[in-house]
Amino acid sequence: MDRGRLEAFSDGVFAVAITLLALNLFVGGPGHGSLLTQLADHWPAFVAFLISFFTIGVIWVNHHALMNNVATVDRTLLFANLVLLLFVVLIPFVTGTMAPYLTAGDQDAHVSMALFAAVFEGMGLSFAAMFAWTLGGEGRTVRPVPREAQVAAVLRFSPGVAAYLVAIAVSFVSAPAALAIVGLAAVYYIFERTPQSLAG
Amino acid sequence: MDRGRLEAFSDGVFAVAITLLALNLFVGGPGHGSLLTQLADHWPAFVAFLISFFTIGVIWVNHHALMNNVATVDRTLLFANLVLLLFVVLIPFVTGTMAPYLTAGDQDAHVSMALFAAVFEGMGLSFAAMFAWTLGGEGRTVRPVPREAQVAAVLRFSPGVAAYLVAIAVSFVSAPAALAIVGLAAVYYIFERTPQSLAG
Amino acid sequence: MDRGRLEAFSDGVFAVAITLLALNLFVGGPGHGSLLTQLADHWPAFVAFLISFFTIGVIWVNHHALMNNVATVDRTLLFANLVLLLFVVLIPFVTGTMAPYLTAGDQDAHVSMALFAAVFEGMGLSFAAMFAWTLGGEGRTVRPVPREAQVAAVLRFSPGVAAYLVAIAVSFVSAPAALAIVGLAAVYYIFERTPQSLAG
Amino acid sequence: MDRGRLEAFSDGVFAVAITLLALNLFVGGPGHGSLLTQLADHWPAFVAFLISFFTIGVIWVNHHALMNNVATVDRTLLFANLVLLLFVVLIPFVTGTMAPYLTAGDQDAHVSMALFAAVFEGMGLSFAAMFAWTLGGEGRTVRPVPREAQVAAVLRFSPGVAAYLVAIAVSFVSAPAALAIVGLAAVYYIFERTPQSLAG
Repeated sequence: MDRGRLEAFSDGVFAVAITLLALNLFVGGPGHGSLLTQLADHWPAFVAFLISFFTIGVIWVNHHALMNNVATVDRTLLFANLVLLLFVVLIPFVTGTMAPYLTAGDQDAHVSMALFAAVFEGMGLSFAAMFAWTLGGEGRTVRPVPREAQVAAVLRFSPGVAAYLVAIAVSFVSAPAALAIVGLAAVYYIFERTPQSLAG
Repeated sequence: MDRGRLEAFSDGVFAVAITLLALNLFVGGPGHGSLLTQLADHWPAFVAFLISFFTIGVIWVNHHALMNNVATVDRTLLFANLVLLLFVVLIPFVTGTMAPYLTAGDQDAHVSMALFAAVFEGMGLSFAAMFAWTLGGEGRTVRPVPREAQVAAVLRFSPGVAAYLVAIAVSFVSAPAALAIVGLAAVYYIFERTPQSLAG
Repeated sequence: MDRGRLEAFSDGVFAVAITLLALNLFVGGPGHGSLLTQLADHWPAFVAFLISFFTIGVIWVNHHALMNNVATVDRTLLFANLVLLLFVVLIPFVTGTMAPYLTAGDQDAHVSMALFAAVFEGMGLSFAAMFAWTLGGEGRTVRPVPREAQVAAVLRFSPGVAAYLVAIAVSFVSAPAALAIVGLAAVYYIFERTPQSLAG
Repeated sequence: MDRGRLEAFSDGVFAVAITLLALNLFVGGPGHGSLLTQLADHWPAFVAFLISFFTIGVIWVNHHALMNNVATVDRTLLFANLVLLLFVVLIPFVTGTMAPYLTAGDQDAHVSMALFAAVFEGMGLSFAAMFAWTLGGEGRTVRPVPREAQVAAVLRFSPGVAAYLVAIAVSFVSAPAALAIVGLAAVYYIFERTPQSLAG
């Protein structure tokens, strides 16, 4: 299989998921009190939307950087990519499920935030698996990835995967604190230059 | 017509359908009892989501392998492909319709599961028709598909089409058993290497 | 602008619209009576879905055949294409609005069916405008379209545009009869070979 | 990163957002009074749909013209593009939120319209930032953009950005007047030939 169609399909899934995210922002509308109050009460949905939007954006950027250096697409990579997309399509669901519970401070807040962070962790691990695959055999990359670049990529990549794991644990203490961690991971990835090193 | 645009359009439909699937996962949210209980009660939706997600993923992989060896796209192939996509866009509907009935054990469970399996059967048969078309005339494939490869492809392809047919029948006895058959077909296709033989 | 991106964007819109169509099929689910009864009562939604699905499919095939012979994409063609896509994105809306009124036999049935047919007429006229544009200037087509091919294309194209116009009028007498006319136009276009002549 | 995948992802987002817009058009359906009355009462949704549809269409055309002259895609451009897409995916939300309040004439009308216009302003500013980036360094464009073309592009581009700013202010006086301004900006961009000058 050529890389082009895997990218086209993945881009389609990223594009649909990132656009569906915004459907979670709708408030009750006329007859549900002042619009300003409705929007203000709905602030967790807006914060969650921004974090999920930029995280999908970051993973799309990284996905491209990774695929850019892939020489051959075999069945293993296809299905690793499919698992990555599984977590991507779950993001609108976990974002929309978590937001209304964010400030409840009870078990529901903990559970919904842990579910949210777990999907991000799954996405990060799938991406790590795809990266490991590219390094795991001769001729899988267009350009060889030098040893130091591999180490650098892993060092830069790990904080995110670790952050989501910490966020799962913190979910059971404070859902807003866990969301802040996931948000910081997105900011970290926007300014971190991992993709260049992935691309060798 | 060149192959590229048929693939682009099909990839778009696959991507939208696979992403919409996750919208069936939403539970009632605040005010509908403990979130853990809501999610636990909703387990058939999660199982159905996974099975439909990976089946669409498999058919996308196979679709690519098939198209990769297609030399010319004529009107017959265009409309066979459209019929395949018809069944693909029906998957979010039949998945979302079946899940809440899965464990009811009554006629509604049987009907909704038979509908679900019938759409998968339709998808399998449309794909078989596209494969048969590629073998049905001179110059339709980029590389000739040797006789043994054709036989091998049919042998490997048939279990899925047969499994969905069995699942329709089993639906009227036990909906969960029928779902398990559809799920096993997805697992079979993930590990089966049909595409390579299709691609000649 | 190169043709490729206009096609990619258009294909995206066609793919999303054709997939969203199936969301109109959902019935009430558990607690709304026997599923078989729900589905049976919902038959107009299934018929309307099939007709809209294949009509979008046909227009996608014809769109490709037309664009295939376009040499340059100017601003006029871009916006004519945008008007075509406007009618395409309206199809899930008019299909979902019309279906529940189809068998009511009252003014609501007439209005909803006329709206449905009017959107199809708008789509047909936008497509005709795009076709006329390709013939309206030197160097707009990759291959020249001979006079007879032009006449043949118009002769083959007109029945559809006329059929939708008739369907609008018939809507005010019988909504099911008007739907049948729109359905017959889809069947006509599936078997009619207009695209080849469009492509010169 | 090559330009192609940034365009493919962006086109996907544009296509999904423009198609989801039409979901805001649905009325109550059977049991909510005469359909004609329902549609007539819903007129702000139709006007808002048309304005948002053509504005997304225009920004898509301009996006293409801009990207067409981009020689290299770096991380800054990637994230500027992501911010543009953020505002694009917000359009179905602000369109659907604003429409039912349009004619209320109260604070809710002002707030929802200001939100609507603010998203358009954000989209315009993100696009301006992308344009500024292309001019801000050696070798960022395929063809150099001459000084006069730059000035001309800025002069032609500014009215839109200014119009959305005025629309935000006017929202607090009259929501329909603010919507008219946003609509006029769309008409202006359809007939204005900015893209050609952007493309150098």
